[in-house]
Amino acid sequence: MITLLSGFTGTGESQLNRNPWTETVPERADRLVRAGSMAEAIIVMPDGFTRYGGSQYLNSSATGRYEDHLVRELVPWVDRRYRTIPRPEARAIAGKSSGGYGALVQAMRHPDVWALVACHSGDMYFPYCYLPDFPKCLDVLARHGGTVERFLRAWQRMPRKADGALFPAINAIAMASCYSPNRRARLGFDLPFDLRTGAIVPAVWRRWLAWDPVQMVTRYRRNLRRLRLVYLDCGTRDEYHLQYGARMVAERLRRLGVRLVHEEFPDGHGNVQYRYDRSFALLSRAFARR
Amino acid sequence: MITLLSGFTGTGESQLNRNPWTETVPERADRLVRAGSMAEAIIVMPDGFTRYGGSQYLNSSATGRYEDHLVRELVPWVDRRYRTIPRPEARAIAGKSSGGYGALVQAMRHPDVWALVACHSGDMYFPYCYLPDFPKCLDVLARHGGTVERFLRAWQRMPRKADGALFPAINAIAMASCYSPNRRARLGFDLPFDLRTGAIVPAVWRRWLAWDPVQMVTRYRRNLRRLRLVYLDCGTRDEYHLQYGARMVAERLRRLGVRLVHEEFPDGHGNVQYRYDRSFALLSRAFARR
Amino acid sequence: MITLLSGFTGTGESQLNRNPWTETVPERADRLVRAGSMAEAIIVMPDGFTRYGGSQYLNSSATGRYEDHLVRELVPWVDRRYRTIPRPEARAIAGKSSGGYGALVQAMRHPDVWALVACHSGDMYFPYCYLPDFPKCLDVLARHGGTVERFLRAWQRMPRKADGALFPAINAIAMASCYSPNRRARLGFDLPFDLRTGAIVPAVWRRWLAWDPVQMVTRYRRNLRRLRLVYLDCGTRDEYHLQYGARMVAERLRRLGVRLVHEEFPDGHGNVQYRYDRSFALLSRAFARR
Amino acid sequence: MITLLSGFTGTGESQLNRNPWTETVPERADRLVRAGSMAEAIIVMPDGFTRYGGSQYLNSSATGRYEDHLVRELVPWVDRRYRTIPRPEARAIAGKSSGGYGALVQAMRHPDVWALVACHSGDMYFPYCYLPDFPKCLDVLARHGGTVERFLRAWQRMPRKADGALFPAINAIAMASCYSPNRRARLGFDLPFDLRTGAIVPAVWRRWLAWDPVQMVTRYRRNLRRLRLVYLDCGTRDEYHLQYGARMVAERLRRLGVRLVHEEFPDGHGNVQYRYDRSFALLSRAFARR
Repeated sequence: MITLLSGFTGTGESQLNRNPWTETVPERADRLVRAGSMAEAIIVMPDGFTRYGGSQYLNSSATGRYEDHLVRELVPWVDRRYRTIPRPEARAIAGKSSGGYGALVQAMRHPDVWALVACHSGDMYFPYCYLPDFPKCLDVLARHGGTVERFLRAWQRMPRKADGALFPAINAIAMASCYSPNRRARLGFDLPFDLRTGAIVPAVWRRWLAWDPVQMVTRYRRNLRRLRLVYLDCGTRDEYHLQYGARMVAERLRRLGVRLVHEEFPDGHGNVQYRYDRSFALLSRAFARR
Repeated sequence: MITLLSGFTGTGESQLNRNPWTETVPERADRLVRAGSMAEAIIVMPDGFTRYGGSQYLNSSATGRYEDHLVRELVPWVDRRYRTIPRPEARAIAGKSSGGYGALVQAMRHPDVWALVACHSGDMYFPYCYLPDFPKCLDVLARHGGTVERFLRAWQRMPRKADGALFPAINAIAMASCYSPNRRARLGFDLPFDLRTGAIVPAVWRRWLAWDPVQMVTRYRRNLRRLRLVYLDCGTRDEYHLQYGARMVAERLRRLGVRLVHEEFPDGHGNVQYRYDRSFALLSRAFARR
Repeated sequence: MITLLSGFTGTGESQLNRNPWTETVPERADRLVRAGSMAEAIIVMPDGFTRYGGSQYLNSSATGRYEDHLVRELVPWVDRRYRTIPRPEARAIAGKSSGGYGALVQAMRHPDVWALVACHSGDMYFPYCYLPDFPKCLDVLARHGGTVERFLRAWQRMPRKADGALFPAINAIAMASCYSPNRRARLGFDLPFDLRTGAIVPAVWRRWLAWDPVQMVTRYRRNLRRLRLVYLDCGTRDEYHLQYGARMVAERLRRLGVRLVHEEFPDGHGNVQYRYDRSFALLSRAFARR
Repeated sequence: MITLLSGFTGTGESQLNRNPWTETVPERADRLVRAGSMAEAIIVMPDGFTRYGGSQYLNSSATGRYEDHLVRELVPWVDRRYRTIPRPEARAIAGKSSGGYGALVQAMRHPDVWALVACHSGDMYFPYCYLPDFPKCLDVLARHGGTVERFLRAWQRMPRKADGALFPAINAIAMASCYSPNRRARLGFDLPFDLRTGAIVPAVWRRWLAWDPVQMVTRYRRNLRRLRLVYLDCGTRDEYHLQYGARMVAERLRRLGVRLVHEEFPDGHGNVQYRYDRSFALLSRAFARR
């Protein structure tokens, strides 16, 4: 069983989208199985979408208990319904971008559920992948009334929400809903910067950093050592510079003695589903070794 | 019956793709029907994809008889299979971008099949929407061996074909396969420019222009006057500058006495499916008047 | 004597600007002379700036008689004032971008004044270097009142006129003031497109094309054959795609038997003053051969 | 006396460059004096250029003692040579971008030399204005051999050094030469990030932050309170997001009781010399009040 998490703004269903000159996930898996590159597997594509575009597959009082959903609801349900091998060594969690982040975090925190993980171009080293968007988010908010509430009201009314120019704002808001929820805050979460001066709020930023895989791997070293395979890759031209985070994580995992495969490839962040060819084969082999 | 043509690189199926914060076409139509904005309709989403990304829904010896497919195969098949009203006044053809182009051309050439048309952000005025890409196509070809054959070979091997930097090349090649097919040419079509100097080849370029709606409307004025409704719209920030072509076409249609609704809206070219709310309602009313 | 024409928005004086890590023209020439790469020469840097940014060094009722200024005023004045060799074989005209255009056109039309020319990244093949900007110009005008007059009034008031987003408008207006002046037009010149629909006006566009070096070289073949040296170069990544025009011109010049050196280099359009190293040396050698 | 510091990659001389549709600094001052907007003044334009593009007007073992140069060499020399009023109340220091940074830092550290300061779009809040460039710098270095030495060697050979794509690398290197010099380091300075993983090196980054005006103002509060005028402005669309730093600094200065004028204007970072109209007038009035 491979649980495949979609990236930010994606859903389980969107992994079945038809894109030009590209296989869907089922077509890809079928080809790999036919070619003998991977064994047959049950591929599960769960949904982690929220009103802001994504949950990072974490529990948050602002958006919902997505982490629990995966390990407490989804896995047992799939085990009941399908012919699975209901043991961690037969379960992989994989994903790309925010889905890669989610996969890695799940594996760190639930080695009793998943013993294999493939993280493609996953969010890591937040000072490079999120912080540079903060002033851009502030710029977008400034153009839409200056508060998150007013921005969100304007955005709700926009017919075209997936606008590239708005992305840094949506993204920062979504990440705040995942990393710094706050029941007492008006919106249900704290922003990591002051809305007027833009100054980073250290107390909130530290809460974000506690969810940065670069920091988490040390904390979860015992769990990580229990995993059968950690596969990590990233493009060397990643637009969010995630290859640097991946190198930091890989370096630490190697030092901790974790079973790691770390690869880089000459491409950017988007449309790199073709990397599943590699991870599915490796996961399959790691499954098979049992 | 509304036949909805997808844009370049799209397929029938891709109109069902799940995108964030956006309805699919069926969800959109369901909402419009529930709200009373449109009557129930059979929506058909045909496939015009080719190896190069699209057929413009024309017959071409280089790619296939897509125009014939729609009027000779698809419509009769749908009429046999579904509870349609098998008359032109009950058939609309609509689409966006290359799908808008295809819809308009179909309506001009087959008023006996479709009596209503909605063209959203359709390709028109080729000197603005295609010509500026010719030198960019030449640049891409120069970086990939200097010939279309070598470029296509390299491209076939690329894991990620839908690369923005390559788009001007793919697009020019695809359009050449539609507008200037040539059975005796090595590739099956002629390019409208010289591969070394870049000079536009007038004889080929004229073949393209003969398929430019701006020129076609005069030639097909008799057919156009038979239509119950021509709906034409375009964003005023269209990245391909299609609003200018739409204005030229609208001006001519109005002068020719065609039943026209021409609208502009403050947006770009991409993700403007929300405009179907407008066209579906207008088409529905025009159907209903019978 | 080398007369060095500056590009669009440049002046004679601006060629003395201090830019980082770059020699000024005098510093460059001094180094080349010291290194023995070129003989001593008088370098003249005339001014062709207009209210719109440049004259293309042509006579125009809209902006002034810049062509005449060079051959009737400047050259005689320099010959009177400085120790020149007052013969065409001892006079070169050179420049970059619009200055390269001006140099080539001057040499074609006044071989009795200049017998050597160096054209770096010069404006040529107007369908690629100007036409793609027409719809962008229309977009800018639409955002500023929809007429050239209103746009120019707004622009006059702007504290920062050299704004990249406005450039396509300024550039098209400036070129119209050079290529299609019209004493009876309100602004003193005709635009090559309709302001509302954007349609290219063939009669005006033909006037522009008559000034395209790609067309001019055939007309001026007798004059061109009299020149001692035509040096032509362009970057293979030129943002205005001028390398294609240069290839067309080079091909024709070669066929006409003109003494031509045509080079390409792997760079874009801007900041390529380092190419003067090459042209100054070649011009100097061609001078010296007398 | 107004000492006007140029921005990064600028020199004293480059402030006299001729740009289209723009006054040079002397022309601007002449107009302001004629209009009665400012009194006559001696304007000094010093040079802070280094091999990497700029010194931030600081002392550095890696590049030179630029801070000392201004207060120990330049000011006494000007006082000897020109008819100045040799007192701080008659001396302003001003500048734009890195020149604005330099001006503010000079005023904070040498209130006995300058009692008035105008900082336009100055570098401040380094987490927003520099940190986002670190991964971009790493990307550039990776494409050029992976070390600063190899990059610099390649760059020295490039005919066109002021390439936008290289800018994040040059800029980070230059800033490291100013903020984190190190006599024992091979290059004479420490980079604030690890070259392989990209990880920020806290010890070096802290040295940078100690030079961030947002941190400095508190430390230099006594000096700042002695100033007759601190003028601070920034565009609300600044590409380096410097408006946020300016707001933080302004907020602190106001709280500290410093004589401050803080303004924002609707523009970006580049070509905003027109803001000198405002600062020269304010400085002049503050001079005059004595």
